[in-house]
Amino acid sequence: MAPQRSLRKTNPITYVLAGILLFGFVIFLLTSSGGDTASLRARLSSKAASSILSPPSLPFYSSNKDSTEVPPPPPVVHYFLNNVTTTGDPIVNQETILILTPLSRFYAEYWDNLLSLNYPHELISLGFITPKDSAGNAATKQLQEAIARTQSSAEGQRFKSITILRQDFEPPLASQSETERHKMENQKVRRAAMAKARNSLLFTTLGPATSWVLWLDSDIVETPHSLIQDLASHNKPIIVPNCFQRYYDENQKSMSVRPYDYNSWIDSPNAQDLAKKMGKDDILLEGYAEMATYRSLMAYMPNGADADPEREVELDGVGGTALLVKAEVHRDGAMFPPFAFYHLIETEGFAKMAARLGWKSFGLPNYYVSFAACSSSIPC
Amino acid sequence: MAPQRSLRKTNPITYVLAGILLFGFVIFLLTSSGGDTASLRARLSSKAASSILSPPSLPFYSSNKDSTEVPPPPPVVHYFLNNVTTTGDPIVNQETILILTPLSRFYAEYWDNLLSLNYPHELISLGFITPKDSAGNAATKQLQEAIARTQSSAEGQRFKSITILRQDFEPPLASQSETERHKMENQKVRRAAMAKARNSLLFTTLGPATSWVLWLDSDIVETPHSLIQDLASHNKPIIVPNCFQRYYDENQKSMSVRPYDYNSWIDSPNAQDLAKKMGKDDILLEGYAEMATYRSLMAYMPNGADADPEREVELDGVGGTALLVKAEVHRDGAMFPPFAFYHLIETEGFAKMAARLGWKSFGLPNYYVSFAACSSSIPC
Repeated sequence: MAPQRSLRKTNPITYVLAGILLFGFVIFLLTSSGGDTASLRARLSSKAASSILSPPSLPFYSSNKDSTEVPPPPPVVHYFLNNVTTTGDPIVNQETILILTPLSRFYAEYWDNLLSLNYPHELISLGFITPKDSAGNAATKQLQEAIARTQSSAEGQRFKSITILRQDFEPPLASQSETERHKMENQKVRRAAMAKARNSLLFTTLGPATSWVLWLDSDIVETPHSLIQDLASHNKPIIVPNCFQRYYDENQKSMSVRPYDYNSWIDSPNAQDLAKKMGKDDILLEGYAEMATYRSLMAYMPNGADADPEREVELDGVGGTALLVKAEVHRDGAMFPPFAFYHLIETEGFAKMAARLGWKSFGLPNYYVSFAACSSSIPC
Repeated sequence: MAPQRSLRKTNPITYVLAGILLFGFVIFLLTSSGGDTASLRARLSSKAASSILSPPSLPFYSSNKDSTEVPPPPPVVHYFLNNVTTTGDPIVNQETILILTPLSRFYAEYWDNLLSLNYPHELISLGFITPKDSAGNAATKQLQEAIARTQSSAEGQRFKSITILRQDFEPPLASQSETERHKMENQKVRRAAMAKARNSLLFTTLGPATSWVLWLDSDIVETPHSLIQDLASHNKPIIVPNCFQRYYDENQKSMSVRPYDYNSWIDSPNAQDLAKKMGKDDILLEGYAEMATYRSLMAYMPNGADADPEREVELDGVGGTALLVKAEVHRDGAMFPPFAFYHLIETEGFAKMAARLGWKSFGLPNYYVSFAACSSSIPC
């Protein structure tokens, strides 16, 4: 069954971008004595009123020595960003990463895990989109509290910048219950809304200096601390780890894990045949008995406890619970289709669209991230 | 024949974002005494180190009263952007517009026309992408000179911010000649590259406070000064004026105009039939005798000199010489497909993709913009 999210977006004709939180990474940069930032600092022009990380199309705030003086005319500042690379060794190359999360529910464990990522936080920007409903209000409030704590903490913890977008339409389905959300007929509406939310987040936060985009669902509560480096080291356009959920196994009387994300797969002739018989707006869904695709699911490909976590498989569809994408894949135009695209939608449609643009997707069947444990809203 | 552009992009695995020019609109805002900016100023928090127009995911530069002091921890600044509207009266609602131009050749007339637009310049951001070749170098240099002049001039002339992106790959075709560029077999490669350039520009410059995006080709040298207000007043998701070219009519011995952009059209059964017989990667092109589509071209719909410039027609394909799009259309995911999308590509594919997202396209057959007059590189 596909990972469940309660974030939806019906029709974003008007947008409420309710809160944008920005944090002065530049200050951090200029005051930090860490060697890691030396190369970045070297690229800062001495005359520049802002940094190479300044916004592309939005104004920067020129440093104003004496605020009582009449400010001079707007300066012309040139930024030479020749070194926006996307490599297998992103820390050495000081590559910036944008972590994007559609957030309908705030898990403390999600935030703690984010904080424990040991990729340099000054190279990490965060972007969130939250739904306009009471759950979204609560999630936004908790998120803002967590942000305030983190950004006022020690320098090594702080992130470069954080953006929160608020949708201004109610979720498309009245019921948020898991049963309701999993119903096949509701899936297309839900995933189309999720796709639009992802696109809104992506289109408004991707900047010219972004090297990588990590899509990380708000339910992902446990990953290796070196997640970003580990995934980036494969140097693939699109790469997805395997997503599992911990649960209490009644038979074994112990904690165990089981597959959670069924959207990462290798295509099958059966699925192709099903697609051929479909109407143009129909979509293929994974994990429903009434639509057996016989695709090879990455969820079922692990080789056991001691297997090589670096083993790669090429995929035709990807899930979005955790998904690392080179920024140029998105810049070429790869987005999350909210409509049937080759009978695929959202993250699965994204993999197909990227493929049409010449970018391949890969999965790591033996490298795990964990979805939140089951509860009243997450099925066991 | 489709409008010709010499900008291309082959494979943007690595990006050279060579120059980003940013201009302190905030300073302008804070010092301006114009009533138009009052509402914007009112929304600036007194504690904010930056403005509501500050970047979404990139750091702002906090005003530092005493630069010798150790800076405080990064502040948490909240921006409440509840009023990002997209209406038929954008000036009253202080709606920001992003003008995006793939620029392979710099025309002084293009820049002069841009300057003469009477939409408040402090609400206009500009974005350019220039190719990595000698023509691109020359265009970038001329553009930067023009920008330097404009941004150091009177406040009313200055734009809010300007971004220039440089591609780092050579154009896909060696020959830039018009004959070569118009060849049917070259069109798909050319337009795919153009689509990727547009996507790169769009994905990296669109911000959360952008209400409108105006695509304006670098060859557009003459438009009504009220172009933005006129197009926006129709309050349509996507709207395109008619594009003409001035030329000297040898028979009449006088200057005349003729249609230039054939990409704005209403679909036809013939085109649909042609598409059905095509391979999945084949695309329909407009303006080639060997592929007669019998579509209704907006270029041929004008009603004469005194016709109503506000007359609307609903379109299935649009051209990109001048094209006004509500930002939410792009945020939903509508981009310029660099691949065959329903056998359409680039701006025509964009209209189709927007339609799949539920957004309609409209044209104004009696409202004109002018393409640069013919020369050695533009056909007569």
